[in-house]
Amino acid sequence: MKDLIKDVLAFRDERNWKQYHDEKDLAISIVLEASELLENFQWKSSEEAKEKDMQNIKEEMADVLIYLIQLADKLGIDLKKEALAKMVKNREKYPVKSK
Amino acid sequence: MKDLIKDVLAFRDERNWKQYHDEKDLAISIVLEASELLENFQWKSSEEAKEKDMQNIKEEMADVLIYLIQLADKLGIDLKKEALAKMVKNREKYPVKSK
Amino acid sequence: MKDLIKDVLAFRDERNWKQYHDEKDLAISIVLEASELLENFQWKSSEEAKEKDMQNIKEEMADVLIYLIQLADKLGIDLKKEALAKMVKNREKYPVKSK
Amino acid sequence: MKDLIKDVLAFRDERNWKQYHDEKDLAISIVLEASELLENFQWKSSEEAKEKDMQNIKEEMADVLIYLIQLADKLGIDLKKEALAKMVKNREKYPVKSK
Repeated sequence: MKDLIKDVLAFRDERNWKQYHDEKDLAISIVLEASELLENFQWKSSEEAKEKDMQNIKEEMADVLIYLIQLADKLGIDLKKEALAKMVKNREKYPVKSK
Repeated sequence: MKDLIKDVLAFRDERNWKQYHDEKDLAISIVLEASELLENFQWKSSEEAKEKDMQNIKEEMADVLIYLIQLADKLGIDLKKEALAKMVKNREKYPVKSK
Repeated sequence: MKDLIKDVLAFRDERNWKQYHDEKDLAISIVLEASELLENFQWKSSEEAKEKDMQNIKEEMADVLIYLIQLADKLGIDLKKEALAKMVKNREKYPVKSK
Repeated sequence: MKDLIKDVLAFRDERNWKQYHDEKDLAISIVLEASELLENFQWKSSEEAKEKDMQNIKEEMADVLIYLIQLADKLGIDLKKEALAKMVKNREKYPVKSK
């Protein structure tokens, strides 16, 4: 993930855009990109959505991840570390049923 | 990112949940987690949101990423590769202004 | 509100679209239109958003309401009655502070 | 709709909340309530969602409408008039097919 993070932040910094990256607006952006991803599934089954526009589905997923990386940088957090920590919490919350 | 992906998918498979992971519902889940992230910023400035609940902000960001990983697996796509490809496209769309 | 509801449902029925109006997709549509409304405020203050595109803000608000009306019809509920009932609940939850 | 609008605005003004109602935050609130509505349909068919929690579905729809009314008031617009105008536009965009 490090090279992706490096690429995303270099893109932002080459354009001098960090100054506009208010965290509230980045959180809004994540919702907007997630909605554009979901739009691919509106009025469709998952099968129909995949047949119709896998390219756009991939690009909207990429956009969600790219904004997540930018928000993580602004907040000074390690996104991967946070996700691993959340998985530990999820494992406590949803224990595997013993047989 | 590989170890995170491995952890997320192992969690899912230990619970036998892949069968419920319809892509449309995963896309809905990404929107719902993104909204829970945004809720931290409702009626607040970014500064106030960060002071109030960074832990929840981190966890909701983690949830968005965890669902992205699960959707990518169901679709058979490499999320990191797609994000790098999107960055190439973004660089074409927004060229750095020459001085 | 009755004439608006009548107009929205007549529009739908003239096109024979009720058959496609699965409630889950209507709920998705409300989220998508709400996100398009929010997009007007991305990277902007409220003042900047209003100056830039009030017409689009109005139309996206209209779209949210139009989908709400269609979902209410499919569910057989009276949207106005439900909103008034929710206000009663809100008044219990947030009592006016006595002086 | 007039009595509902009157009730919603009286509720707000009794609590002196208009001062907090920044339009951007109201637009965020509409997205958040729409997402809470959609949450009722996550991992479920429309039929399952309706059986499980119609009361919550109704209340979240009410919340979306209540925030729409508050945003319309702040923007000084007539929500019903805007929806009727949008329907005129929709009729132009999607003409009924002649037989």
